[in-house]
Amino acid sequence: MAGRLDHVNIAAPDAGGLARKLTEALGMEVVKETVVEEQGVKVIVLDAGGSHLEITEPLGPDTPVGRFLSKKGPGLHHIAISVPDIEAALAKMKAAGIALIDETPKIGAMGNRIAFAHPKSFGGVLIEIVEGEAD
Amino acid sequence: MAGRLDHVNIAAPDAGGLARKLTEALGMEVVKETVVEEQGVKVIVLDAGGSHLEITEPLGPDTPVGRFLSKKGPGLHHIAISVPDIEAALAKMKAAGIALIDETPKIGAMGNRIAFAHPKSFGGVLIEIVEGEAD
Repeated sequence: MAGRLDHVNIAAPDAGGLARKLTEALGMEVVKETVVEEQGVKVIVLDAGGSHLEITEPLGPDTPVGRFLSKKGPGLHHIAISVPDIEAALAKMKAAGIALIDETPKIGAMGNRIAFAHPKSFGGVLIEIVEGEAD
Repeated sequence: MAGRLDHVNIAAPDAGGLARKLTEALGMEVVKETVVEEQGVKVIVLDAGGSHLEITEPLGPDTPVGRFLSKKGPGLHHIAISVPDIEAALAKMKAAGIALIDETPKIGAMGNRIAFAHPKSFGGVLIEIVEGEAD
């Protein structure tokens, strides 16, 4: 199970404004725009050549991303690593002593199965595990 | 010029410890370990399937990464986007009104030409531009 970087997530108060800057200045392309009501976010995904940049804008201040912005300000929020088998990955992470936020997979913004590990286990980095095809 | 995500950088007080966790828990592989004296960092690079995770550990508190750790704590530090022609990319960024930390390219830890844009121009995200082959 070798992890592949699936995406980098950025928390932003204005996802559209940041996406425009990335397209104008770096030639990146928006590939998806969606609202995920249950997570309280608008999501814009840009192609980054094999992986993606995902920008999340909170729908209100009392949402997980809204609280992150109030506390830490805008910027890098988490990275996602894709694995072929999420149950196997979670079992391996538990065996390695990693604290998991999600002990079992849930459905992510892109419709695939995901789980988050606690940042205290990875040097302050919030890591999302995404089930996806092996590269 | 479509940007490709080249690497994600993590600032850590103990790069070796974090690299071991990523290899044990996520099956990632270390592909390079180096010390860049002029930047005051030890660098460990892990393969992430087409892109890389780069962990930088400061050689002392009075270095750019040492000061970042004191101020913000460990975690995600910057992302790097590779472009085929760094001069063309910098000209395009300037034309788009992006504030640049490096107006002209310098040599990065991996020996290629790089430049940093100011995080205020990209929603609090520090972005490094790396000259590399097109994908």
